[in-house]
Amino acid sequence: MTEERLAELERRLAAMEDERAIERLIASYGPLVDCGEADAAAQLWSTDGSYDVEGWSMRSRADVAAMVRSDAHQGLIGRGCCHFLGPAVVTVAGDDAVAVCESILVLRRGDGFSVSRAGANHFRLQRIDGRWQIVARTTRALDGQAEARDLLATGVAGR
Amino acid sequence: MTEERLAELERRLAAMEDERAIERLIASYGPLVDCGEADAAAQLWSTDGSYDVEGWSMRSRADVAAMVRSDAHQGLIGRGCCHFLGPAVVTVAGDDAVAVCESILVLRRGDGFSVSRAGANHFRLQRIDGRWQIVARTTRALDGQAEARDLLATGVAGR
Amino acid sequence: MTEERLAELERRLAAMEDERAIERLIASYGPLVDCGEADAAAQLWSTDGSYDVEGWSMRSRADVAAMVRSDAHQGLIGRGCCHFLGPAVVTVAGDDAVAVCESILVLRRGDGFSVSRAGANHFRLQRIDGRWQIVARTTRALDGQAEARDLLATGVAGR
Repeated sequence: MTEERLAELERRLAAMEDERAIERLIASYGPLVDCGEADAAAQLWSTDGSYDVEGWSMRSRADVAAMVRSDAHQGLIGRGCCHFLGPAVVTVAGDDAVAVCESILVLRRGDGFSVSRAGANHFRLQRIDGRWQIVARTTRALDGQAEARDLLATGVAGR
Repeated sequence: MTEERLAELERRLAAMEDERAIERLIASYGPLVDCGEADAAAQLWSTDGSYDVEGWSMRSRADVAAMVRSDAHQGLIGRGCCHFLGPAVVTVAGDDAVAVCESILVLRRGDGFSVSRAGANHFRLQRIDGRWQIVARTTRALDGQAEARDLLATGVAGR
Repeated sequence: MTEERLAELERRLAAMEDERAIERLIASYGPLVDCGEADAAAQLWSTDGSYDVEGWSMRSRADVAAMVRSDAHQGLIGRGCCHFLGPAVVTVAGDDAVAVCESILVLRRGDGFSVSRAGANHFRLQRIDGRWQIVARTTRALDGQAEARDLLATGVAGR
Protein backbone atom coordinates (compact mmCIF):
# COMPACT_ATOMS: atom_id res chain seq x y z
CA MET A 1 0.00 0.00 0.00
CA THR A 2 2.76 2.44 0.95
CA GLU A 3 4.68 1.24 -2.10
CA GLU A 4 1.73 1.97 -4.38
CA ARG A 5 1.17 5.41 -2.92
CA LEU A 6 4.85 6.28 -3.25
CA ALA A 7 4.95 5.11 -6.85
CA GLU A 8 1.82 7.09 -7.66
CA LEU A 9 3.23 10.23 -6.05
CA GLU A 10 6.47 9.82 -7.99
CA ARG A 11 4.57 9.41 -11.24
CA ARG A 12 2.40 12.49 -10.73
CA LEU A 13 5.31 14.62 -9.55
CA ALA A 14 7.44 13.61 -12.53
CA ALA A 15 4.56 14.46 -14.90
CA MET A 16 4.38 17.97 -13.42
CA GLU A 17 8.14 18.40 -13.56
CA ASP A 18 8.12 17.48 -17.25
CA GLU A 19 5.41 20.00 -18.07
CA ARG A 20 7.13 22.70 -16.05
CA ALA A 21 10.50 22.06 -17.69
CA ILE A 22 8.86 22.59 -21.08
CA GLU A 23 7.02 25.71 -19.91
CA ARG A 24 10.31 27.13 -18.66
CA LEU A 25 12.07 26.30 -21.91
CA ILE A 26 9.40 28.13 -23.92
CA ALA A 27 9.36 31.08 -21.50
CA SER A 28 13.13 31.39 -22.00
CA TYR A 29 12.93 31.79 -25.76
CA GLY A 30 11.86 35.43 -25.90
CA PRO A 31 14.35 36.72 -23.32
CA LEU A 32 17.20 34.79 -24.99
CA VAL A 33 16.60 36.02 -28.52
CA ASP A 34 15.84 39.58 -27.39
CA CYS A 35 19.22 39.82 -25.66
CA GLY A 36 21.07 38.02 -28.44
CA GLU A 37 22.17 34.90 -26.54
CA ALA A 38 22.50 32.92 -29.75
CA ASP A 39 24.02 29.75 -28.31
CA ALA A 40 21.69 29.54 -25.32
CA ALA A 41 18.68 30.05 -27.60
CA ALA A 42 19.97 27.34 -29.95
CA GLN A 43 20.36 24.94 -27.01
CA LEU A 44 16.58 24.98 -26.60
CA TRP A 45 16.51 22.89 -29.80
CA SER A 46 17.85 19.40 -30.42
CA THR A 47 21.00 19.18 -32.56
CA ASP A 48 18.96 18.77 -35.73
CA GLY A 49 15.78 20.41 -34.48
CA SER A 50 13.83 22.61 -36.88
CA TYR A 51 12.25 26.04 -36.68
CA ASP A 52 9.95 26.90 -39.52
CA VAL A 53 8.79 30.49 -39.43
CA GLU A 54 7.42 32.35 -42.40
CA GLY A 55 10.28 33.05 -44.80
CA TRP A 56 12.84 31.24 -42.69
CA SER A 57 13.45 27.50 -42.43
CA MET A 58 16.03 26.46 -39.86
CA ARG A 59 17.14 22.84 -39.64
CA SER A 60 19.62 22.67 -36.76
CA ARG A 61 20.89 24.35 -33.63
CA ALA A 62 23.51 25.99 -35.81
CA ASP A 63 20.78 27.48 -38.00
CA VAL A 64 18.95 28.88 -34.97
CA ALA A 65 22.16 30.44 -33.65
CA ALA A 66 22.86 31.89 -37.11
CA MET A 67 19.37 33.43 -37.20
CA VAL A 68 19.99 35.16 -33.86
CA ARG A 69 23.37 36.41 -35.12
CA SER A 70 21.97 37.53 -38.48
CA ASP A 71 21.97 41.19 -39.46
CA ALA A 72 18.18 41.05 -39.62
CA HIS A 73 17.78 39.85 -36.04
CA GLN A 74 20.60 42.04 -34.69
CA GLY A 75 18.85 44.95 -36.34
CA LEU A 76 15.71 44.18 -34.36
CA ILE A 77 17.68 44.00 -31.10
CA GLY A 78 19.43 47.29 -31.81
CA ARG A 79 16.13 48.96 -32.54
CA GLY A 80 14.42 47.40 -29.53
CA CYS A 81 12.32 44.23 -29.78
CA CYS A 82 10.27 41.97 -27.56
CA HIS A 83 9.36 38.46 -28.68
CA PHE A 84 6.52 38.08 -26.21
CA LEU A 85 5.21 34.52 -25.82
CA GLY A 86 2.15 33.72 -23.76
CA PRO A 87 1.63 30.83 -21.31
CA ALA A 88 2.09 27.51 -23.09
CA VAL A 89 -0.36 24.61 -23.11
CA VAL A 90 1.78 21.48 -22.77
CA THR A 91 0.84 17.84 -23.38
CA VAL A 92 3.39 15.16 -22.51
CA ALA A 93 3.33 11.51 -23.61
CA GLY A 94 6.36 9.65 -22.36
CA ASP A 95 9.46 11.16 -23.94
CA ASP A 96 7.47 13.18 -26.47
CA ALA A 97 5.53 16.37 -25.97
CA VAL A 98 3.53 18.99 -27.83
CA ALA A 99 3.16 22.58 -26.72
CA VAL A 100 1.34 25.56 -28.14
CA CYS A 101 1.18 29.25 -27.38
CA GLU A 102 0.39 32.52 -29.02
CA SER A 103 2.90 35.34 -29.30
CA ILE A 104 3.31 38.91 -30.35
CA LEU A 105 6.39 40.65 -31.70
CA VAL A 106 6.68 44.17 -30.33
CA LEU A 107 9.11 46.60 -31.94
CA ARG A 108 10.17 50.07 -30.96
CA ARG A 109 8.68 52.71 -33.23
CA GLY A 110 9.47 56.34 -32.53
CA ASP A 111 8.74 57.18 -28.91
CA GLY A 112 6.63 54.07 -28.40
CA PHE A 113 6.30 50.52 -29.61
CA SER A 114 4.08 48.74 -32.08
CA VAL A 115 2.92 45.15 -32.56
CA SER A 116 4.37 44.03 -35.85
CA ARG A 117 3.10 40.46 -35.68
CA ALA A 118 0.82 38.12 -33.74
CA GLY A 119 1.62 34.45 -34.17
CA ALA A 120 0.65 30.86 -33.47
CA ASN A 121 3.49 28.67 -32.19
CA HIS A 122 3.44 24.86 -32.28
CA PHE A 123 6.26 22.92 -30.64
CA ARG A 124 7.18 19.26 -30.80
CA LEU A 125 9.64 18.28 -28.10
CA GLN A 126 11.54 15.19 -27.07
CA ARG A 127 13.40 14.19 -23.96
CA ILE A 128 16.93 13.66 -25.24
CA ASP A 129 19.83 12.88 -22.90
CA GLY A 130 17.48 13.57 -20.00
CA ARG A 131 16.59 17.10 -21.14
CA TRP A 132 13.56 18.36 -23.06
CA GLN A 133 14.52 19.81 -26.43
CA ILE A 134 12.53 21.27 -29.31
CA VAL A 135 12.62 18.96 -32.32
CA ALA A 136 10.23 21.02 -34.46
CA ARG A 137 8.77 24.48 -34.00
CA THR A 138 6.37 25.97 -36.50
CA THR A 139 5.25 29.58 -36.28
CA ARG A 140 2.71 31.32 -38.49
CA ALA A 141 1.23 34.79 -38.37
CA LEU A 142 -2.35 35.06 -37.13
CA ASP A 143 -3.41 36.89 -40.26
CA GLY A 144 -6.43 34.79 -41.14
CA GLN A 145 -4.50 31.94 -42.80
CA ALA A 146 -5.73 28.40 -42.18
CA GLU A 147 -2.26 27.11 -41.32
CA ALA A 148 -1.96 29.31 -38.24
CA ARG A 149 -5.37 28.16 -37.04
CA ASP A 150 -4.39 24.52 -37.56
CA LEU A 151 -1.32 24.99 -35.39
CA LEU A 152 -3.48 26.27 -32.53
CA ALA A 153 -6.16 23.58 -32.87
CA THR A 154 -3.75 20.65 -33.07
CA GLY A 155 -1.51 22.10 -30.38
CA VAL A 156 -4.24 22.43 -27.77
CA ALA A 157 -5.38 18.91 -28.62
CA GLY A 158 -1.82 17.70 -27.95
CA ARG A 159 -1.22 16.56 -31.52
CA MET B 1 4.55 8.88 10.63
CA THR B 2 4.96 7.52 7.10
CA GLU B 3 1.18 7.65 6.77
CA GLU B 4 1.11 11.30 7.76
CA ARG B 5 3.91 12.23 5.38
CA LEU B 6 2.23 10.40 2.51
CA ALA B 7 -1.09 12.08 3.19
CA GLU B 8 0.59 15.48 3.35
CA LEU B 9 2.42 14.89 0.07
CA GLU B 10 -0.80 13.80 -1.58
CA ARG B 11 -2.59 16.89 -0.32
CA ARG B 12 0.10 19.31 -1.56
CA LEU B 13 0.48 17.57 -4.90
CA ALA B 14 -3.27 17.60 -5.49
CA ALA B 15 -3.38 21.32 -4.66
CA MET B 16 -0.75 22.01 -7.31
CA GLU B 17 -2.50 19.81 -9.86
CA ASP B 18 -5.72 21.74 -9.29
CA GLU B 19 -4.05 25.10 -9.83
CA ARG B 20 -2.23 23.86 -12.90
CA ALA B 21 -5.37 22.39 -14.43
CA ILE B 22 -7.02 25.81 -14.12
CA GLU B 23 -3.98 27.60 -15.52
CA ARG B 24 -4.03 25.26 -18.50
CA LEU B 25 -7.74 25.79 -19.02
CA ILE B 26 -7.28 29.56 -19.10
CA ALA B 27 -4.19 29.32 -21.33
CA SER B 28 -6.27 27.29 -23.79
CA TYR B 29 -8.95 29.92 -24.21
CA GLY B 30 -7.08 32.25 -26.57
CA PRO B 31 -5.76 29.55 -28.91
CA LEU B 32 -9.21 27.91 -29.08
CA VAL B 33 -11.19 31.03 -29.95
CA ASP B 34 -8.52 32.33 -32.34
CA CYS B 35 -8.69 29.13 -34.39
CA GLY B 36 -12.47 28.88 -34.15
CA GLU B 37 -12.77 25.66 -32.14
CA ALA B 38 -16.22 26.61 -30.92
CA ASP B 39 -17.10 23.37 -29.13
CA ALA B 40 -13.73 22.95 -27.44
CA ALA B 41 -13.85 26.57 -26.26
CA ALA B 42 -17.39 26.04 -24.94
CA GLN B 43 -16.24 22.93 -23.02
CA LEU B 44 -14.09 25.18 -20.84
CA TRP B 45 -17.38 26.33 -19.30
CA SER B 46 -19.91 24.37 -17.28
CA THR B 47 -23.17 23.55 -19.03
CA ASP B 48 -24.84 26.69 -17.73
CA GLY B 49 -21.66 28.70 -17.14
CA SER B 50 -21.73 32.40 -17.93
CA TYR B 51 -19.44 34.76 -19.81
CA ASP B 52 -20.21 38.41 -19.33
CA VAL B 53 -18.14 40.63 -21.58
CA GLU B 54 -19.06 44.17 -22.47
CA GLY B 55 -22.03 44.08 -24.81
CA TRP B 56 -22.33 40.32 -24.72
CA SER B 57 -23.90 38.17 -22.02
CA MET B 58 -23.56 34.42 -22.52
CA ARG B 59 -25.38 32.03 -20.19
CA SER B 60 -24.39 28.54 -21.32
CA ARG B 61 -21.90 26.47 -23.25
CA ALA B 62 -24.19 26.78 -26.23
CA ASP B 63 -24.00 30.58 -25.98
CA VAL B 64 -20.19 30.49 -25.89
CA ALA B 65 -20.08 28.22 -28.92
CA ALA B 66 -22.54 30.54 -30.72
CA MET B 67 -20.30 33.52 -29.96
CA VAL B 68 -17.31 31.76 -31.53
CA ARG B 69 -19.41 30.87 -34.56
CA SER B 70 -20.93 34.34 -34.87
CA ASP B 71 -20.23 36.52 -37.89
CA ALA B 72 -18.57 39.05 -35.60
CA HIS B 73 -16.08 36.56 -34.19
CA GLN B 74 -15.50 34.80 -37.52
CA GLY B 75 -14.79 38.20 -38.99
CA LEU B 76 -12.03 38.71 -36.42
CA ILE B 77 -10.52 35.30 -37.22
CA GLY B 78 -10.59 35.98 -40.94
CA ARG B 79 -8.92 39.31 -40.45
CA GLY B 80 -6.36 37.91 -37.98
CA CYS B 81 -6.81 38.10 -34.22
CA CYS B 82 -5.01 37.10 -31.07
CA HIS B 83 -6.84 36.91 -27.74
CA PHE B 84 -3.70 37.08 -25.65
CA LEU B 85 -4.19 36.19 -21.97
CA GLY B 86 -1.42 36.58 -19.44
CA PRO B 87 -0.42 34.18 -16.65
CA ALA B 88 -3.37 33.59 -14.31
CA VAL B 89 -3.35 33.99 -10.53
CA VAL B 90 -5.37 31.04 -9.22
CA THR B 91 -6.85 30.50 -5.75
CA VAL B 92 -8.47 27.15 -4.99
CA ALA B 93 -10.74 26.33 -2.04
CA GLY B 94 -11.99 22.75 -2.22
CA ASP B 95 -14.11 22.35 -5.32
CA ASP B 96 -14.31 26.11 -5.96
CA ALA B 97 -11.72 28.41 -7.41
CA VAL B 98 -11.16 31.98 -8.49
CA ALA B 99 -8.66 33.05 -11.13
CA VAL B 100 -7.71 36.41 -12.58
CA CYS B 101 -5.58 37.59 -15.46
CA GLU B 102 -5.15 40.53 -17.75
CA SER B 103 -5.46 40.22 -21.51
CA ILE B 104 -5.04 42.12 -24.72
CA LEU B 105 -6.87 41.69 -27.99
CA VAL B 106 -4.54 42.12 -30.94
CA LEU B 107 -6.00 42.57 -34.43
CA ARG B 108 -4.36 42.72 -37.80
CA ARG B 109 -4.35 46.23 -39.22
CA GLY B 110 -2.73 46.82 -42.58
CA ASP B 111 0.79 45.40 -42.61
CA GLY B 112 0.94 45.15 -38.84
CA PHE B 113 -1.27 44.62 -35.83
CA SER B 114 -2.82 46.86 -33.24
CA VAL B 115 -4.08 46.41 -29.69
CA SER B 116 -7.79 47.02 -29.82
CA ARG B 117 -8.49 46.23 -26.16
CA ALA B 118 -6.81 45.54 -22.83
CA GLY B 119 -8.98 43.72 -20.34
CA ALA B 120 -9.42 42.42 -16.82
CA ASN B 121 -10.67 38.83 -16.61
CA HIS B 122 -12.23 37.31 -13.49
CA PHE B 123 -13.09 33.61 -13.45
CA ARG B 124 -15.13 31.55 -11.01
CA LEU B 125 -14.59 27.85 -11.48
CA GLN B 126 -15.95 24.66 -10.00
CA ARG B 127 -14.82 21.08 -10.08
CA ILE B 128 -17.74 19.33 -11.76
CA ASP B 129 -17.61 15.63 -12.68
CA GLY B 130 -13.94 15.64 -11.71
CA ARG B 131 -13.00 18.44 -14.12
CA TRP B 132 -12.53 22.17 -13.51
CA GLN B 133 -15.04 24.25 -15.44
CA ILE B 134 -15.74 27.97 -15.66
CA VAL B 135 -19.03 28.80 -14.01
CA ALA B 136 -18.74 32.58 -14.43
CA ARG B 137 -16.28 34.71 -16.35
CA THR B 138 -16.49 38.48 -16.32
CA THR B 139 -14.33 40.61 -18.61
CA ARG B 140 -14.14 44.40 -18.68
CA ALA B 141 -11.94 46.76 -20.63
CA LEU B 142 -9.15 48.45 -18.69
CA ASP B 143 -10.34 51.88 -19.77
CA GLY B 144 -10.44 53.51 -16.36
CA GLN B 145 -13.78 52.09 -15.26
CA ALA B 146 -14.13 51.01 -11.63
CA GLU B 147 -15.64 47.66 -12.55
CA ALA B 148 -12.50 46.46 -14.33
CA ARG B 149 -10.39 47.46 -11.36
CA ASP B 150 -12.71 45.62 -8.98
CA LEU B 151 -12.31 42.43 -11.02
CA LEU B 152 -8.54 42.60 -10.63
CA ALA B 153 -8.58 43.44 -6.93
CA THR B 154 -11.06 40.75 -5.94
CA GLY B 155 -9.46 38.22 -8.26
CA VAL B 156 -5.97 38.51 -6.80
CA ALA B 157 -7.52 38.31 -3.31
CA GLY B 158 -9.17 35.05 -4.37
CA ARG B 159 -12.71 36.39 -4.00
CA MET C 1 14.23 3.01 1.39
CA THR C 2 10.74 4.38 2.06
CA GLU C 3 12.36 7.13 4.12
CA GLU C 4 14.63 8.10 1.24
CA ARG C 5 11.80 8.16 -1.26
CA LEU C 6 9.64 10.27 1.03
CA ALA C 7 12.45 12.74 1.62
CA GLU C 8 13.13 12.98 -2.11
CA LEU C 9 9.45 13.57 -2.88
CA GLU C 10 9.27 16.26 -0.22
CA ARG C 11 12.37 17.96 -1.63
CA ARG C 12 11.10 17.99 -5.23
CA LEU C 13 7.61 19.08 -4.22
CA ALA C 14 8.97 21.94 -2.11
CA ALA C 15 11.17 23.06 -5.03
CA MET C 16 8.12 23.29 -7.26
CA GLU C 17 6.09 25.08 -4.61
CA ASP C 18 8.85 27.68 -4.27
CA GLU C 19 8.97 28.33 -8.01
CA ARG C 20 5.20 28.52 -8.23
CA ALA C 21 4.93 30.93 -5.31
CA ILE C 22 7.34 33.26 -7.12
CA GLU C 23 5.51 32.89 -10.42
CA ARG C 24 2.26 33.79 -8.67
CA LEU C 25 3.84 36.79 -6.97
CA ILE C 26 5.09 38.12 -10.31
CA ALA C 27 1.77 37.38 -12.05
CA SER C 28 0.03 39.42 -9.33
CA TYR C 29 2.06 42.57 -9.95
CA GLY C 30 0.25 43.79 -13.06
CA PRO C 31 -3.29 43.24 -11.76
CA LEU C 32 -2.43 44.92 -8.45
CA VAL C 33 -0.91 48.08 -9.89
CA ASP C 34 -3.54 48.36 -12.63
CA CYS C 35 -6.32 48.40 -10.06
CA GLY C 36 -4.42 50.63 -7.66
CA GLU C 37 -4.00 48.23 -4.74
CA ALA C 38 -1.00 50.14 -3.44
CA ASP C 39 -0.49 48.24 -0.20
CA ALA C 40 -0.94 44.79 -1.70
CA ALA C 41 1.49 45.65 -4.50
CA ALA C 42 4.00 46.92 -1.95
CA GLN C 43 3.68 43.68 0.03
CA LEU C 44 5.25 41.85 -2.91
CA TRP C 45 8.50 43.54 -1.86
CA SER C 46 10.52 43.10 1.32
CA THR C 47 10.39 46.00 3.79
CA ASP C 48 13.48 47.60 2.27
CA GLY C 49 13.22 46.00 -1.16
CA SER C 50 14.10 48.10 -4.19
CA TYR C 51 12.48 48.76 -7.55
CA ASP C 52 14.68 50.50 -10.05
CA VAL C 53 12.82 51.49 -13.20
CA GLU C 54 13.99 54.16 -15.57
CA GLY C 55 13.56 57.52 -13.94
CA TRP C 56 12.28 56.08 -10.68
CA SER C 57 14.28 54.53 -7.86
CA MET C 58 12.22 53.03 -5.04
CA ARG C 59 13.94 51.76 -1.93
CA SER C 60 11.20 50.34 0.29
CA ARG C 61 7.67 49.03 0.42
CA ALA C 62 6.58 52.53 1.32
CA ASP C 63 8.20 53.85 -1.88
CA VAL C 64 6.41 51.25 -4.00
CA ALA C 65 3.08 52.12 -2.38
CA ALA C 66 3.79 55.82 -2.96
CA MET C 67 4.50 55.14 -6.63
CA VAL C 68 1.12 53.40 -7.03
CA ARG C 69 -0.60 56.32 -5.26
CA SER C 70 1.29 58.96 -7.24
CA ASP C 71 -0.53 61.30 -9.60
CA ALA C 72 1.48 59.86 -12.48
CA HIS C 73 0.36 56.28 -11.81
CA GLN C 74 -3.22 57.24 -10.90
CA GLY C 75 -3.34 59.11 -14.18
CA LEU C 76 -2.46 55.90 -16.03
CA ILE C 77 -5.19 53.99 -14.18
CA GLY C 78 -7.77 56.65 -14.91
CA ARG C 79 -6.86 56.65 -18.57
CA GLY C 80 -6.74 52.84 -18.77
CA CYS C 81 -3.51 50.86 -18.42
CA CYS C 82 -2.32 47.28 -18.47
CA HIS C 83 1.07 46.34 -17.06
CA PHE C 84 1.26 43.03 -18.89
CA LEU C 85 4.01 40.70 -17.66
CA GLY C 86 4.83 37.46 -19.44
CA PRO C 87 5.54 34.04 -17.90
CA ALA C 88 8.55 34.27 -15.57
CA VAL C 89 11.64 32.07 -15.68
CA VAL C 90 12.47 31.33 -12.04
CA THR C 91 15.67 29.91 -10.53
CA VAL C 92 15.69 29.09 -6.83
CA ALA C 93 18.76 28.41 -4.67
CA GLY C 94 17.80 27.81 -1.05
CA ASP C 95 16.22 30.97 0.32
CA ASP C 96 17.33 33.09 -2.65
CA ALA C 97 15.88 33.26 -6.12
CA VAL C 98 16.20 35.09 -9.42
CA ALA C 99 13.37 35.55 -11.88
CA VAL C 100 13.12 37.23 -15.24
CA CYS C 101 10.33 38.13 -17.62
CA GLU C 102 9.50 40.52 -20.40
CA SER C 103 6.60 42.93 -20.19
CA ILE C 104 4.65 45.47 -22.16
CA LEU C 105 2.81 48.53 -20.93
CA VAL C 106 -0.44 49.02 -22.81
CA LEU C 107 -2.28 52.35 -22.54
CA ARG C 108 -5.64 53.44 -23.82
CA ARG C 109 -5.34 55.81 -26.75
CA GLY C 110 -8.51 57.09 -28.38
CA ASP C 111 -10.80 54.18 -29.25
CA GLY C 112 -8.03 51.62 -28.91
CA PHE C 113 -4.84 50.97 -27.02
CA SER C 114 -1.16 51.34 -27.80
CA VAL C 115 2.03 49.76 -26.49
CA SER C 116 3.97 52.54 -24.86
CA ARG C 117 6.84 50.38 -23.60
CA ALA C 118 8.35 46.91 -23.81
CA GLY C 119 10.61 46.01 -20.92
CA ALA C 120 13.04 43.54 -19.40
CA ASN C 121 12.37 42.72 -15.74
CA HIS C 122 14.94 41.15 -13.42
CA PHE C 123 13.90 40.13 -9.91
CA ARG C 124 15.98 39.08 -6.92
CA LEU C 125 13.86 37.45 -4.23
CA GLN C 126 14.38 36.07 -0.77
CA ARG C 127 12.34 33.88 1.47
CA ILE C 128 11.74 36.10 4.50
CA ASP C 129 9.50 35.03 7.38
CA GLY C 130 8.51 32.01 5.29
CA ARG C 131 7.27 34.07 2.33
CA TRP C 132 9.00 34.97 -0.95
CA GLN C 133 9.54 38.70 -1.28
CA ILE C 134 11.21 40.87 -3.92
CA VAL C 135 14.42 42.36 -2.59
CA ALA C 136 15.47 44.01 -5.85
CA ARG C 137 13.64 44.52 -9.13
CA THR C 138 15.27 46.22 -12.08
CA THR C 139 13.29 47.12 -15.19
CA ARG C 140 14.67 48.63 -18.39
CA ALA C 141 13.02 49.42 -21.70
CA LEU C 142 13.85 47.09 -24.58
CA ASP C 143 14.97 49.99 -26.75
CA GLY C 144 18.32 48.61 -27.82
CA GLN C 145 20.22 49.52 -24.66
CA ALA C 146 22.78 47.04 -23.36
CA GLU C 147 21.46 47.19 -19.81
CA ALA C 148 18.08 45.73 -20.76
CA ARG C 149 19.77 42.90 -22.62
CA ASP C 150 22.01 42.17 -19.64
CA LEU C 151 18.95 41.84 -17.40
CA LEU C 152 17.51 39.18 -19.69
CA ALA C 153 20.76 37.26 -20.13
CA THR C 154 21.64 37.13 -16.45
CA GLY C 155 18.06 36.48 -15.44
CA VAL C 156 17.63 33.39 -17.62
CA ALA C 157 21.00 32.15 -16.36
CA GLY C 158 19.68 32.51 -12.81
CA ARG C 159 22.20 35.17 -11.83
